[in-house]
Amino acid sequence: MPRFTEFETYDVRFPTSLHLDGSDAMNADPDYSAAYLILRTDAGDGLEGHGFAFTIGRGNDVQTAAIEALRDHVLGLDVDATLADLGGFWKSLVHDSQLRWLGPEKGVMHMAIGAVVNAVWDLAAKRAGVPLWKLLAGLTPEQIVDLVDFRYLTDALTPEEALEILRKAEPGRAERERQLRDRGYPAYTTTPGWLGYDDAKLVRLCQEAVAEGFGQVKLKVGADLDDDVRRMRLAREAVGPDIRIAIDANQRWDVAEAIRWIEALEPYDVWWVEEPTSPDDVLGHAAIARAVAPTKVATGEHVQNRVVFKQMLQAGSLAFLQLDSARVAGVNENIAILLLAAKFGIPVCPHAGGVGLCELVQHLSMFDLVAVSGSTEDRVIEYVDHLHEQFLDPVVIEDGHYVAPTRPGFSAELTARTLDEYRFPGGRIWTEQTKGSTK
Amino acid sequence: MPRFTEFETYDVRFPTSLHLDGSDAMNADPDYSAAYLILRTDAGDGLEGHGFAFTIGRGNDVQTAAIEALRDHVLGLDVDATLADLGGFWKSLVHDSQLRWLGPEKGVMHMAIGAVVNAVWDLAAKRAGVPLWKLLAGLTPEQIVDLVDFRYLTDALTPEEALEILRKAEPGRAERERQLRDRGYPAYTTTPGWLGYDDAKLVRLCQEAVAEGFGQVKLKVGADLDDDVRRMRLAREAVGPDIRIAIDANQRWDVAEAIRWIEALEPYDVWWVEEPTSPDDVLGHAAIARAVAPTKVATGEHVQNRVVFKQMLQAGSLAFLQLDSARVAGVNENIAILLLAAKFGIPVCPHAGGVGLCELVQHLSMFDLVAVSGSTEDRVIEYVDHLHEQFLDPVVIEDGHYVAPTRPGFSAELTARTLDEYRFPGGRIWTEQTKGSTK
Repeated sequence: MPRFTEFETYDVRFPTSLHLDGSDAMNADPDYSAAYLILRTDAGDGLEGHGFAFTIGRGNDVQTAAIEALRDHVLGLDVDATLADLGGFWKSLVHDSQLRWLGPEKGVMHMAIGAVVNAVWDLAAKRAGVPLWKLLAGLTPEQIVDLVDFRYLTDALTPEEALEILRKAEPGRAERERQLRDRGYPAYTTTPGWLGYDDAKLVRLCQEAVAEGFGQVKLKVGADLDDDVRRMRLAREAVGPDIRIAIDANQRWDVAEAIRWIEALEPYDVWWVEEPTSPDDVLGHAAIARAVAPTKVATGEHVQNRVVFKQMLQAGSLAFLQLDSARVAGVNENIAILLLAAKFGIPVCPHAGGVGLCELVQHLSMFDLVAVSGSTEDRVIEYVDHLHEQFLDPVVIEDGHYVAPTRPGFSAELTARTLDEYRFPGGRIWTEQTKGSTK
Repeated sequence: MPRFTEFETYDVRFPTSLHLDGSDAMNADPDYSAAYLILRTDAGDGLEGHGFAFTIGRGNDVQTAAIEALRDHVLGLDVDATLADLGGFWKSLVHDSQLRWLGPEKGVMHMAIGAVVNAVWDLAAKRAGVPLWKLLAGLTPEQIVDLVDFRYLTDALTPEEALEILRKAEPGRAERERQLRDRGYPAYTTTPGWLGYDDAKLVRLCQEAVAEGFGQVKLKVGADLDDDVRRMRLAREAVGPDIRIAIDANQRWDVAEAIRWIEALEPYDVWWVEEPTSPDDVLGHAAIARAVAPTKVATGEHVQNRVVFKQMLQAGSLAFLQLDSARVAGVNENIAILLLAAKFGIPVCPHAGGVGLCELVQHLSMFDLVAVSGSTEDRVIEYVDHLHEQFLDPVVIEDGHYVAPTRPGFSAELTARTLDEYRFPGGRIWTEQTKGSTK
């Protein structure tokens, strides 16, 4: 009877602030980081589970300490029994009566649970010998519903309603899987639009994005309105009228300011406006959405859990739901969020970028296509060209689409060399230079 | 020019789970804990700033690590300049562009900021030679508004509206301060109602509460409906018809279940129902409030920040606002919350108990009485008789009222002996016994 025997954490940081990659109106100089976990067992198959929380530098040590706080919840558990009841495993972490006080279900402790849950799913997919999306898409509707905790959701989605959604999608699964393997899953790119880039770089990267087959690009906005109008005009000229341009304010505005700012950019045809205000402000998002219609609101990368997403769907706060693979408590909670979105008929367009978020989240969208919403209409996964080379199984983009992964697992593994060189503060990258802004 | 020179943290835990003090429907066996901070300066006056985050056991190490992550934000700062601009100091912590990712403004990292902010306020009051409530109540309306960050609030409360509220309360300040020093501030007691107590203890403690002068008691509910009906009946018989009985579900229910459960208890005259569902569920609370009216809903001890309180006020989610001194980012954010409540005409009845929450929060309610709402009507501070003996300046309750503190500071100091004996895991209390459920 194999058991979990090792629980190894790493504080891994990349000095991305040196080049202002990832700069936006709220995140001036991020050092993309991962609070990283490797789980090992005594099964003798050599398989490991890898998972992580994503942060942007300072505080990655706190995030790593939070993952460490879950060590005793995992070590010694029966591997087969755990993998056979991942819904129960999720509840054992999220409902720990003492740890719960640190959230509940939000922030550092919740992201730590996400890292552990995702690591266990990585192991589950490796043991099954399939990529995670394929493992999930092969479960029965009943098995999928068993993974979800419906606490605090039943006024919007009951287990029975979730079953009905999943059963309705069952007949087309094989056909949609073929479509996915043939054509991949549509992507959009944020690469051109970081605030730290000058106009010439913005225009060049927009043109490259179109040439590479992307049907949508995204611009960071919110620091200066005149700059934003100029950049939006340049981007629109560069991509032409048929490419969608989304804008992203990264929570910069209050409600009235958001409405004024968005109206000033509307002449350039805004596909969506992302994070116009606080991610906690369900009612503020809804007020903005009503005021700027038909321009649509997108949000989610900082939405703390399924309870806030539920309300955003109930209140009409968003037209695109941007779940994040590592913000909430892992795969199980994201399945709940996919089901909520399907119930309300809202397309899911996941947040990605950072460290490994593209690698993880592609699996969730592909599962959604095959087994939940059954559609790619108005659905795109964010793509950012950062740090993929650090992963063992990096995402592959072809003609503006994510190619479906075939390697077993959750595509979550950083290379051994990366873990060694980027360890903070002792790794070679950090001992050789001290210019990164993290500390 | 004095500077902050020492930043010392402690993981302090009390084995309260041994006696089921503090047991409720969600927190079965808490070990009340404090992630504790002492700030020292080189001013030569011997004055220290003390602050803490409250947790219930496991994870207090993570909370302490989060406070440690703020060390470099404080050490070396000019003490006089910092105390002269505590609004700016607050923003320097909350808007750190990298740490912000760990929330934003919620959970472990936000509570850590609360501990640091409150420690600085403790020092400020000691340097001024007055209790914190008196320091705050002596500020001009303009000075108070400068302490508040209005980001994400302006759709509900602008700085101009806040000024107007404060100016309207100015004329009566001296008279209300006399009233406060004479009669104290009304309290209610949760001491009788913990779920772990048997019926005889419940009845005895209810009778004692009335004899001690309390006009309101509170019962924990939500584990078993039949038990709750019986306990509510016993409590009502014990206190008679004129004492208010509040009930507290500690987030146990979904929306429909909450409504059913509350309706079953209404025959015994429920003054308020507290935390009927997830603290994140603004719309769920509002739906419950509409359904159970005229029974009133109270919530707030787990509300993560001012943005969620703002929405609860906008949506009609609560009739009593239960701010917590150590959940949000300290005094400054609680001033914002007091102003929001005043704007909406909602009484603030703070959460207390735990470790030191009574000690801290009395200052905020007393400030509110003198300088903000100007009223004690339907306003009570929770009182729980736990762990006060561990503090240097414990609360004093007389005839069901908090006596206004006179000692300079924020009443936040644990005794030196407490810090030594209850340190986890090395203190005497923890090395001598291993029965506490924390680990």
